[in-house]
Amino acid sequence: MTTPTTRARITEITGNVVRERRDHLATEEPLEIRLTGAGARDRRTVAITMRTPGHDFELAAGFLHGEGIAGPGHIRAIGYCTDEDVAPEARYNTVTVALDGPIPDLPTLDRHFLTSSACGVCGSASLDVLRDRCAPVPAGALRLSPKTLYGLPSRLRAAQGVFGKTGGLHAAGLFTGDGDLLAAREDVGRHNAVDKLVGWASMNQLLPLRDHVLMVSGRASYEIMQKALAAGVPAVCAVSAPSSLAVELAREFGMTLVGFLREERCNVYAGMERITA
Amino acid sequence: MTTPTTRARITEITGNVVRERRDHLATEEPLEIRLTGAGARDRRTVAITMRTPGHDFELAAGFLHGEGIAGPGHIRAIGYCTDEDVAPEARYNTVTVALDGPIPDLPTLDRHFLTSSACGVCGSASLDVLRDRCAPVPAGALRLSPKTLYGLPSRLRAAQGVFGKTGGLHAAGLFTGDGDLLAAREDVGRHNAVDKLVGWASMNQLLPLRDHVLMVSGRASYEIMQKALAAGVPAVCAVSAPSSLAVELAREFGMTLVGFLREERCNVYAGMERITA
Repeated sequence: MTTPTTRARITEITGNVVRERRDHLATEEPLEIRLTGAGARDRRTVAITMRTPGHDFELAAGFLHGEGIAGPGHIRAIGYCTDEDVAPEARYNTVTVALDGPIPDLPTLDRHFLTSSACGVCGSASLDVLRDRCAPVPAGALRLSPKTLYGLPSRLRAAQGVFGKTGGLHAAGLFTGDGDLLAAREDVGRHNAVDKLVGWASMNQLLPLRDHVLMVSGRASYEIMQKALAAGVPAVCAVSAPSSLAVELAREFGMTLVGFLREERCNVYAGMERITA
Repeated sequence: MTTPTTRARITEITGNVVRERRDHLATEEPLEIRLTGAGARDRRTVAITMRTPGHDFELAAGFLHGEGIAGPGHIRAIGYCTDEDVAPEARYNTVTVALDGPIPDLPTLDRHFLTSSACGVCGSASLDVLRDRCAPVPAGALRLSPKTLYGLPSRLRAAQGVFGKTGGLHAAGLFTGDGDLLAAREDVGRHNAVDKLVGWASMNQLLPLRDHVLMVSGRASYEIMQKALAAGVPAVCAVSAPSSLAVELAREFGMTLVGFLREERCNVYAGMERITA
């Protein structure tokens, strides 16, 4: 069973001092929520969401309540997928909710990525899906000094016009390898801020972004890394923590991932070969 | 055309001092992304996302690129919905992307909420959809003193075991009106943390949560408020800023919404009648 935290070896840079150490990451894994109804063939996947393992039955029950699909009186049982042909690492990533009656009409579907109909979503399966679409990022010529990295957050912050007024927006910025800001975008959704940047690059014939750095104001999740990978970005920096799956994706696809980039320090989770420290 | 920020009258409480003032909120409005292909009847909605207006064509282009649906070479034109029968406030919430060829097979769909097939999503329409499902929260007996509010963030933080290890998780906590913590949940996705709490309440026969306060570690968006409303929660508190649509939803459905709850101060955006200051 996957745990809420995942161990990783990381590289910590403070000023110019580099040291390797062990760290804990917040685990991010997909959870598939399935419904079964009264009839034997009455079954359906209603959502796949990236979540931190733990309290999964509550997550399923709360999701169904919030979407108006099933209240407490309509749920007969909740359990994990126990198909024997499912890989052990995926067995706790599918929750089946048995309803007392038939499955209601479902106008809303919240499927964030492609999946097979087999019971067996897991982080690796999510990366497999990406592998069909995206090649690893080439080693390339991009090199980043600690000094350049340390300058990124304040440059991004200075470009955040709406945040200054409201204090309520995520930001994403696209930088050159020298730390010059090319474009910054803000949004209530951080995935949208990244989409806006990639769209800007697309409209300006800059894709793939082989020599660029993407900086985000918050955390680095699977979704952010997947968008960066699709745009060819070799390096992603975040002010806050990355998730386990963000790190896994970066390592698998040859990307550099920097987190906790604040003042004169940062953690490098993947792609240290692009950091000149 | 909607703007990235929205003005609102709010109540600011510092210690025990209450004053009304004007503030700016980050605007949150739905954006529907539509594709049209080569054939006259070849059209399809691929996503509805809550976003901050601005750079919408980039958002559409970046989203399509990230999902592997259409790269820069496949897009012929991008424009807003200009149907004359669409209400002015909704006219800039639908972006149509004309592809050079046919619309590709789309395994992934990212529809976050129900919409009609007409071109006309907007914040009010999103609230209309909710109105069909959720009644306003009753005035109820819940009253919150500033002192109780000021104690919530540290109590939630103390319960965040995984955050302490990783620094990388959102949290949501459910409190009594006296500020006692009933349950706290963590997740890489803040909507999941709230789902877990509501699921916990559901499994413990506590729904609807008429006398409770929901506190979230980050911002308050439409999605968070919608989940709170479905659970009957009369008061939501956030460490950071609320979006315009979160405030609109709270006011429409009789909920109390508190933001920037840090140390001995906070802003009240809706439902001031439940605050005893």
